[in-house]
Amino acid sequence: MPVAKVHRISAFAPDDISGITRAIADGRIDPKGVIAVFGKTEGNGCVNDFSRGFATATLTQLFSQFMARDDAQKICFVMSGGTEGGMAPHWTVFERAEGEGPGPALAIGRAHTPALPPEDLGRAGEIEMVAEGVREAMADAGIDNPGDVHFVQVKCPLLTAQRIGEAAARGKTVATTSTLKSMGLSRAASALGVAVALGELRADQIAEHDIGENWALHSARASCSAGIELLGHEIVVLGMSKQWGGPLVVDHAVMADAIDVEPVRAALQRLGFSASGQLSPAERTRLVALLAKAEPSQNATLRGFRHTMLDDSDISPTRHARAFVCGALAGLVGHAEIYVSGGAEHQGPDGGGPVAVITTR
Amino acid sequence: MPVAKVHRISAFAPDDISGITRAIADGRIDPKGVIAVFGKTEGNGCVNDFSRGFATATLTQLFSQFMARDDAQKICFVMSGGTEGGMAPHWTVFERAEGEGPGPALAIGRAHTPALPPEDLGRAGEIEMVAEGVREAMADAGIDNPGDVHFVQVKCPLLTAQRIGEAAARGKTVATTSTLKSMGLSRAASALGVAVALGELRADQIAEHDIGENWALHSARASCSAGIELLGHEIVVLGMSKQWGGPLVVDHAVMADAIDVEPVRAALQRLGFSASGQLSPAERTRLVALLAKAEPSQNATLRGFRHTMLDDSDISPTRHARAFVCGALAGLVGHAEIYVSGGAEHQGPDGGGPVAVITTR
Amino acid sequence: MPVAKVHRISAFAPDDISGITRAIADGRIDPKGVIAVFGKTEGNGCVNDFSRGFATATLTQLFSQFMARDDAQKICFVMSGGTEGGMAPHWTVFERAEGEGPGPALAIGRAHTPALPPEDLGRAGEIEMVAEGVREAMADAGIDNPGDVHFVQVKCPLLTAQRIGEAAARGKTVATTSTLKSMGLSRAASALGVAVALGELRADQIAEHDIGENWALHSARASCSAGIELLGHEIVVLGMSKQWGGPLVVDHAVMADAIDVEPVRAALQRLGFSASGQLSPAERTRLVALLAKAEPSQNATLRGFRHTMLDDSDISPTRHARAFVCGALAGLVGHAEIYVSGGAEHQGPDGGGPVAVITTR
Amino acid sequence: MPVAKVHRISAFAPDDISGITRAIADGRIDPKGVIAVFGKTEGNGCVNDFSRGFATATLTQLFSQFMARDDAQKICFVMSGGTEGGMAPHWTVFERAEGEGPGPALAIGRAHTPALPPEDLGRAGEIEMVAEGVREAMADAGIDNPGDVHFVQVKCPLLTAQRIGEAAARGKTVATTSTLKSMGLSRAASALGVAVALGELRADQIAEHDIGENWALHSARASCSAGIELLGHEIVVLGMSKQWGGPLVVDHAVMADAIDVEPVRAALQRLGFSASGQLSPAERTRLVALLAKAEPSQNATLRGFRHTMLDDSDISPTRHARAFVCGALAGLVGHAEIYVSGGAEHQGPDGGGPVAVITTR
Repeated sequence: MPVAKVHRISAFAPDDISGITRAIADGRIDPKGVIAVFGKTEGNGCVNDFSRGFATATLTQLFSQFMARDDAQKICFVMSGGTEGGMAPHWTVFERAEGEGPGPALAIGRAHTPALPPEDLGRAGEIEMVAEGVREAMADAGIDNPGDVHFVQVKCPLLTAQRIGEAAARGKTVATTSTLKSMGLSRAASALGVAVALGELRADQIAEHDIGENWALHSARASCSAGIELLGHEIVVLGMSKQWGGPLVVDHAVMADAIDVEPVRAALQRLGFSASGQLSPAERTRLVALLAKAEPSQNATLRGFRHTMLDDSDISPTRHARAFVCGALAGLVGHAEIYVSGGAEHQGPDGGGPVAVITTR
Repeated sequence: MPVAKVHRISAFAPDDISGITRAIADGRIDPKGVIAVFGKTEGNGCVNDFSRGFATATLTQLFSQFMARDDAQKICFVMSGGTEGGMAPHWTVFERAEGEGPGPALAIGRAHTPALPPEDLGRAGEIEMVAEGVREAMADAGIDNPGDVHFVQVKCPLLTAQRIGEAAARGKTVATTSTLKSMGLSRAASALGVAVALGELRADQIAEHDIGENWALHSARASCSAGIELLGHEIVVLGMSKQWGGPLVVDHAVMADAIDVEPVRAALQRLGFSASGQLSPAERTRLVALLAKAEPSQNATLRGFRHTMLDDSDISPTRHARAFVCGALAGLVGHAEIYVSGGAEHQGPDGGGPVAVITTR
Repeated sequence: MPVAKVHRISAFAPDDISGITRAIADGRIDPKGVIAVFGKTEGNGCVNDFSRGFATATLTQLFSQFMARDDAQKICFVMSGGTEGGMAPHWTVFERAEGEGPGPALAIGRAHTPALPPEDLGRAGEIEMVAEGVREAMADAGIDNPGDVHFVQVKCPLLTAQRIGEAAARGKTVATTSTLKSMGLSRAASALGVAVALGELRADQIAEHDIGENWALHSARASCSAGIELLGHEIVVLGMSKQWGGPLVVDHAVMADAIDVEPVRAALQRLGFSASGQLSPAERTRLVALLAKAEPSQNATLRGFRHTMLDDSDISPTRHARAFVCGALAGLVGHAEIYVSGGAEHQGPDGGGPVAVITTR
Repeated sequence: MPVAKVHRISAFAPDDISGITRAIADGRIDPKGVIAVFGKTEGNGCVNDFSRGFATATLTQLFSQFMARDDAQKICFVMSGGTEGGMAPHWTVFERAEGEGPGPALAIGRAHTPALPPEDLGRAGEIEMVAEGVREAMADAGIDNPGDVHFVQVKCPLLTAQRIGEAAARGKTVATTSTLKSMGLSRAASALGVAVALGELRADQIAEHDIGENWALHSARASCSAGIELLGHEIVVLGMSKQWGGPLVVDHAVMADAIDVEPVRAALQRLGFSASGQLSPAERTRLVALLAKAEPSQNATLRGFRHTMLDDSDISPTRHARAFVCGALAGLVGHAEIYVSGGAEHQGPDGGGPVAVITTR
């Protein structure tokens, strides 16, 4: 019977994998069972954030010691840069083990899609491909009901000059010739693909011009990031399955804006926490991982008051948003070793975002 | 019978005083009764933050229309730069009116100390001078018992090359020849002066080398900022007094670290808020102002997990801290038009800080 | 006979006008003759740069002491934020006096255009209006031949939600609904307007879609900045005129890229400097003002080598470019109290920019 | 007969070693002969610059393919972060080959000192150890006369909590308990060690309190950087030796301030360049490498005009200085693929710095 293990491990630098190494040496982690590693690394989370690549290179080398390099590269390394405010750099290692335990329990599934034709990026073709990939990952996780899915992490490709040229050589045009914009469009289409797979939206509700524009359309459970190193999509699904056992459970909430912590409190209470006020130290030990998306609202206001995140030419808006939302969530759960990631196109409503909570029973 | 009025007014730029102008035109504010204006302005809050000076110049010009320029300059303009995260730029106008109402109520007192000899800055002489000024401001507010004081804002001087030279000409040495360091030392000595006046510390407990070094010594109610434009100190005391009437009350809390919101919740509950979870929109209307200090802990950890605020060479630590602490407090009170100020030497414990809450009954 | 005076005056803060005040008190500047003040102020030169507004407010108040406020507001205050690298914050005061002296000499002309209909911003209508304004300013300066014009500074309007709404109410659409983008489009159309007036381009060579896109079209003498405080355009023309006398002359050069200092050297040599190597201290005293535009090249290379200015999410590209180009120019002229301004759409070729040199004979 | 080879190779990311890999594959570089690699990497050059570690890890892995890992780690990898302005990220690979050619020619020597006792860091003991190491590296390079040395790169250790504790356990105190300050002190003492070895200063001229304080004492040829990964010092000496042959030569200059390019021009002219104005494209091909140090002057002025580098709380002073000085030097040599490194304690005069020029004959 599959049993999910989730290890939250502090990092002292983008290449500090000593905690993971120790856990492997001690037998707490079986490297062969590792499906994904999510990292919060301490760069700026923007274009020139090399902490992510440094972390990925270091992790790839580590796991290559225990398996063929090809297999190591199948592990989904999702590096989210930016640990603003008091956010603690850390790794979250997702492992699939065999064992026994009560169910339903946290289930983890993974899928890799084929390479995406460049001309489909940020368009209906990508939505469809991701939706299909999410269904595959659900099957891998043993989850039939989309309602049992609580978080979908998608790592998606972007356009480069070379890929655009390759499409042009075949007589195809692309959605944008800007590499930077292609990252946003790819995240946007991927999030909508998740929404379609989970039944949050029907494919025919989404016009091509909605992608990256119409924020009313969104998924409550998608978290997407674009990376130059892949041509297809890597998809990790977290949900509840009767086929899995063990001590871990997952639920999710949607923050309507940057300080909307009450839905997260409600999710914690559904999972048995009292959560009146901040989690007590005793309750806190049950909290295994908190995964959230953050972004500034595009109308530059928060509950009727102006925010200045979009006007600050010294600090990127996503850095402001991560610090602020991490503060709100840490005020609720009582520590800041949480995963708050920026850039949330169609991932929760404008200015808000999805949050997943993984706890022991 | 004196009645305190506190007006929280949104600002759309550092020189946007239109909200104050309208309130004066409408008769909601009597400019002659204004004792102090606290501003959160949208600069970086550090050395080259011109939003503060711009705001002060604009406010001085405004109030000079209603009184002699000398009197306008007696109003205590405390400009705190930095509205990171979702923090809303705004003014808080403190006014002393005459009227009737239930007491005890919020009382506001003010004092200006004589010019501080440069050689006393950051030393015992400044502690003593500030302590004396706080006592004067308490008397002005009609507060006898230091226990009834809940917030003391001190604007203190700094050293310049000219002032250091003037001291040298009299054969005196100064605590530091660095202008930047003199700001921290002046805030530090001022905070300790508040602690002495409020009976939190005895003067003989503080050695000169403790100033700016020994963070175990601190006041739970001091908030200090240094400015180049003054030679003495401007002191504003907020507390409860039986001699004052009206609808406003004040209480305070001390955050032990950056996410320690429970003491603030307790203060709200003492003031009659239910405050289980985030303040509801209905309760929120009773909250007039929330004033807080924020800073990163010097040991680079928060409840055992590492934070990276002190290591980030792109964003100043105080900017990180304001965004993060504002998130934690906004998660509690339900909006982000709150006053979170950075740089908290001896103002609350290391990594934490004092918080004042002004509400209607 | 009109005689141009140009005063370069150091500034110790955005509101430090003490040098100008002293020059007025000493009779070196007659405030009534002042046509324009160009300021390099020490903000970030981007969206939230309040050093510019602070400077403008302070200057307006100063000149209002010597003339009606309306007249003070006719003075063209062009504040360029950002003194990166070793660039010195300073004012350049342009004055028209009466006197005698050899000619032709530096001539200064000014024009204010009518308010620009919002629907014309960034379109052919703005090009035409600016071209007409430049012709007017040339006439004001007594310059007939466009070849005698060496620098045209245009301050142009931008779109706000209100202005867009006003156009919509009349059934008109605007070029963009983004305030930020409207700044770039307004600068772009203004620069092309200068090019048309100076005969560098014919109006029929410019298609509407070229504006802000086709960098091959540009003026060698335009310098444009957008400001929220005006509805029309303020235009200052610097050139040589036989109708003017006095000791000052002006010439210009175009840098093809960020380190292309040889055309500037050639301009200096045309003005009689030896300029083999860096200007000697003796020659340097003849240099009154150096005005330049700077920007990173859009292809991210400089003479075949990569630059990282466009990829740095911590420092804005314009800040990089100003520091770097100022270094190159200061290496040539021997000091860094020079005016290097960023954001150069159609102002010189991509990655380069126009440079004006004002010297005594 | 030893022949020095110096390869300047562009980098497209901190881990982009494709140019070096190709040069090895093509036989242009023999990895076994590589003595040092200097890298300009595109981080912020400050505390949280992970581009340096990422580059070093990638280079170490590369060279480990061609030799024992121990030998790969003997190669001196000096990574200097920060490519502000137009500076191009690149590698400079120093190789010692065997061959024939005219002499005297560029000679390269290397030395590794023993581990430095923590209590000696930033003190006379470090000066002495580095001086001894420089003499060793000179011997390795076959240079007898200190006057023939033109550049000395020192990579020096810093203090960590553990190293401080180890010293304390032996009853020793350290120069500072701040890790950050220990970096500056270590660079400072190392630079003075170079000065002593080269006869620029006598050891008895340097009091311990001069280290990191008295900038009048400095070396015209030292370039130092501190790294956490080593306990001793890695020293690379570049100079001219009759024992070496080949096409390369080296000379040096000292910039007295940030725009003092004339001494560099003079050095180029001594090497046979005409260098009247900017190097022509033809001459430029002879320039192999230009290595410089940059920093803002501590008195906040440059030739009598104020600079704002030390007051900018958004951009670190060293980032400003690198962009600006790189502009000045690129204006002279005609491209910006040059090595400008920040943080120059006792390395050249305050605000200036040493520059080395390597060219073909």
